[in-house]
Amino acid sequence: MDDEVREAVLNRSDLVLLGAAGILCVLAGVGHYAEWPSVLRFLLSGGAVTALAALVGRSVEQLGDRLGAGATGVLQSALGNLPELFICIFALKSGLVGVVQAALIGSILANLLLVLGACFLVGGLRHGTQKLGSERAKSISMLMLLSVTALVIPSVAHWVHSPVEPHEKTFSLIVSVILLALFALSLPASLRRDEQSESGPGQEDHEVPRWPITLAVAMLAVAGAAAAFVSDWFVDALTPAMDALNVSEAFAGLVIVAIAGNAIENVVGVQLAARGQSEYAFSVVLNSPIQIGLVLAPVLVIVSQVFGLATLTLVFSPMLVIALIFAVVLAAFISIDGESNWLEGATLIALYAVIATSFWWG
Amino acid sequence: MDDEVREAVLNRSDLVLLGAAGILCVLAGVGHYAEWPSVLRFLLSGGAVTALAALVGRSVEQLGDRLGAGATGVLQSALGNLPELFICIFALKSGLVGVVQAALIGSILANLLLVLGACFLVGGLRHGTQKLGSERAKSISMLMLLSVTALVIPSVAHWVHSPVEPHEKTFSLIVSVILLALFALSLPASLRRDEQSESGPGQEDHEVPRWPITLAVAMLAVAGAAAAFVSDWFVDALTPAMDALNVSEAFAGLVIVAIAGNAIENVVGVQLAARGQSEYAFSVVLNSPIQIGLVLAPVLVIVSQVFGLATLTLVFSPMLVIALIFAVVLAAFISIDGESNWLEGATLIALYAVIATSFWWG
Amino acid sequence: MDDEVREAVLNRSDLVLLGAAGILCVLAGVGHYAEWPSVLRFLLSGGAVTALAALVGRSVEQLGDRLGAGATGVLQSALGNLPELFICIFALKSGLVGVVQAALIGSILANLLLVLGACFLVGGLRHGTQKLGSERAKSISMLMLLSVTALVIPSVAHWVHSPVEPHEKTFSLIVSVILLALFALSLPASLRRDEQSESGPGQEDHEVPRWPITLAVAMLAVAGAAAAFVSDWFVDALTPAMDALNVSEAFAGLVIVAIAGNAIENVVGVQLAARGQSEYAFSVVLNSPIQIGLVLAPVLVIVSQVFGLATLTLVFSPMLVIALIFAVVLAAFISIDGESNWLEGATLIALYAVIATSFWWG
Repeated sequence: MDDEVREAVLNRSDLVLLGAAGILCVLAGVGHYAEWPSVLRFLLSGGAVTALAALVGRSVEQLGDRLGAGATGVLQSALGNLPELFICIFALKSGLVGVVQAALIGSILANLLLVLGACFLVGGLRHGTQKLGSERAKSISMLMLLSVTALVIPSVAHWVHSPVEPHEKTFSLIVSVILLALFALSLPASLRRDEQSESGPGQEDHEVPRWPITLAVAMLAVAGAAAAFVSDWFVDALTPAMDALNVSEAFAGLVIVAIAGNAIENVVGVQLAARGQSEYAFSVVLNSPIQIGLVLAPVLVIVSQVFGLATLTLVFSPMLVIALIFAVVLAAFISIDGESNWLEGATLIALYAVIATSFWWG
Repeated sequence: MDDEVREAVLNRSDLVLLGAAGILCVLAGVGHYAEWPSVLRFLLSGGAVTALAALVGRSVEQLGDRLGAGATGVLQSALGNLPELFICIFALKSGLVGVVQAALIGSILANLLLVLGACFLVGGLRHGTQKLGSERAKSISMLMLLSVTALVIPSVAHWVHSPVEPHEKTFSLIVSVILLALFALSLPASLRRDEQSESGPGQEDHEVPRWPITLAVAMLAVAGAAAAFVSDWFVDALTPAMDALNVSEAFAGLVIVAIAGNAIENVVGVQLAARGQSEYAFSVVLNSPIQIGLVLAPVLVIVSQVFGLATLTLVFSPMLVIALIFAVVLAAFISIDGESNWLEGATLIALYAVIATSFWWG
Repeated sequence: MDDEVREAVLNRSDLVLLGAAGILCVLAGVGHYAEWPSVLRFLLSGGAVTALAALVGRSVEQLGDRLGAGATGVLQSALGNLPELFICIFALKSGLVGVVQAALIGSILANLLLVLGACFLVGGLRHGTQKLGSERAKSISMLMLLSVTALVIPSVAHWVHSPVEPHEKTFSLIVSVILLALFALSLPASLRRDEQSESGPGQEDHEVPRWPITLAVAMLAVAGAAAAFVSDWFVDALTPAMDALNVSEAFAGLVIVAIAGNAIENVVGVQLAARGQSEYAFSVVLNSPIQIGLVLAPVLVIVSQVFGLATLTLVFSPMLVIALIFAVVLAAFISIDGESNWLEGATLIALYAVIATSFWWG
């Protein structure tokens, strides 16, 4: 352990990531101020956001290593969605409420259908039928089911013209506070969970050299600050790029922003499945919807109303919510079923394709 | 066993309950005829109904002890909801169809979300993760799922403007008859179930002294008759009290009447969970929705049409039915998942709070 | 084995079936051209279609015996729904889009509620609680859940007025192609499954004499061709017969055509359950919805648009889709629950009765 610290502080993959993030950020900035074609600006800033998200994740891991496994979990929950949070805030500032709502639901759909499907497909083709039935996987899928149900109540109340309809800003705020309170309650449990799981599949951490704590904090601060700028440029390029590509706002949010914003976690999940760690992959993929439902969406609702941005409520369009309910129920069935095979994976991906297609026409 | 009969016929808790019921009934009656403030009348008659419900339950237990475990089950099914039945009939007589519908669905929601959540929270905090996976729990949750599905078909047919819409009184009657027939079919099985379970967790019955059979019958008759009067006063105070408290009719039915009407079972369920008997608590809590769906709701529909009260159909408001479907599916997932922890309990309670809030604005 | 070939090529049940099919076809044809009363023509042609469906099934079994278990699976998937396919095509040619849509969903509902309920009722009464928890049953029920979800997305998109609404013909075509692609992907797995299961419960095949391959091919060709004619007569008699019996178009499709079209598989399923082979019965019953969702419905959508028949889209009426979603979710819960008893069977049948009743008024 001591030897590792004396070796190079940043290993090769860290350096590649840092270099890529730096170059992409510079290009995205130049493109933004030089008013390059919108599609190019969109791709550059999208790539830069993804690279910065990876850097934030790496810094949090390094920091958390010092603070113990518990604190890492809390930090990751709090900062893991930082770039997505910035993108959504800037999009709200630009009045793109539809894009933000589609991106929030789209992230969950992409996780539960596309990424989970890819995990099952890759894992199933390489390793045959995969087991998922651990207590932890079940407990996570129940928590996901319950939090998503709470998240969709305001939408349901809206469409059925329940008497709550004229009060939906207040109602969304109340639900957001309840969801955040649930998240606060769940923190001790997830701290304990992470401590237990550390002894399990943590052997891969040993390959990573430890950064000095000042480097980790500095990297986090710089990457976070850069993410704020780049998110602004990304949102700025979004509307003209979608116009140029003739893509609807809902499709842009649901598919493009959602996949770009979760690229890292998604790749990690599929890699775990490819290595045969289907249980762990399942936990990683299901954790994201919980964080979106219990943290990202409520924080955005509160921020949008407190800071006077375009008002975000929890009233999503009916198609988004029905697709969400289908996806969540299917994921819960699959986790309780306790098994997955490649055909289920292919079917989940097909279902994602069907839903994405239904948003193609804007 | 013989010694117990020679001891005091009524033990201390019986006497306290009898005294409380008597005092509350007298006060509720005086309040009713002296036209005390509506909120006070509402609280007194609500308390009296709850105490009488407990007395009816106690009498049935004592009676059933003589008739064998099987007959107790049948009697409890038939008489357990007696006070609720009286309240609903008087409410229908006063034309409060919305209150009755909200109270029926609200009882199920309160059981499946609030009380189940409280059971999981209390049981989980005291005893850690709780197991639920017995055959009996699964079988009850499947029966609940199926009976609630049949119960909501008329509502669904109504909102989607299916051609059955103009015939919905007839359709509700047909569905009610089918539901009652299912209940009749399920009686032999539940008789057998109770006989088996008697040998299991019945040790607590030995603390209770046996009443002479005449006392049990007399107590049942008196408590039942009193419940009829007090229910009338309760319904009479309901509307003015809700006006005085500025609470909507739907909220009054969904939350206040529902919780008051099930207070006893709810306390019993949570007590069982606190003692670590999570399986038994789960059965008690899930049994109530089955009785509401298969007995109380159909009987009220038939009674309302046969006796010419305000017509009750099985067409509930969409928000009620969607909340019901969510709650039932979640409870089924949790029972099949086979485990519960305190965080799931907290999430169920949060979900109840979200749904109740959505009915706050009337 | 060799001795069996030397015995009578057609055993008694084959001869009875062949005779019945011949007589019914002749009577149906005479009735059609002699313009007998519509109800009589409807009954005769319906009986003839059922007998021909059985003959097609028998020929495929015999053929498949030569080609190996794998090919039988593929052939059965491809040809098992042949008579239903003919009926639906002729109905589309006559513009009876509503009948076809109701028949497609009705077949799935009849399988998942009525037939599954009858299996559980018969199996449960004869053999007590039945186990269903094999990997194969779970895997089939997951595939059914996923394919039905994809099937209903176009309907959902339509009613919530998603922007895809004006493009729903194209969208239905795209979804149909995706569903057929999934079916193609699932073929290798089902080939392998059938090979494995052959060694298991295949002992009943030995009672059947083997037909010469030319006889099997000829029988298939003749029965298939006859099915095409008889289906035409059946559809021709359908509308006047329903008018004479005062039955709505939706009810005719949902109940009458659906049950007639699946009569054989249904009887087989219930027989298997009666013999205590609940697992196998469950697989047979759940396989039918998968074939309707992944093959029959998509093929009909494509055929109707390519050959310019009355346009069939995947936009079903809301009541059909909601009933379908309820049925599929219930079947999935029951299969994951891993057990069935006669009361669950009775409840499923009751639920089917409730849904069918809601379509009675047309």
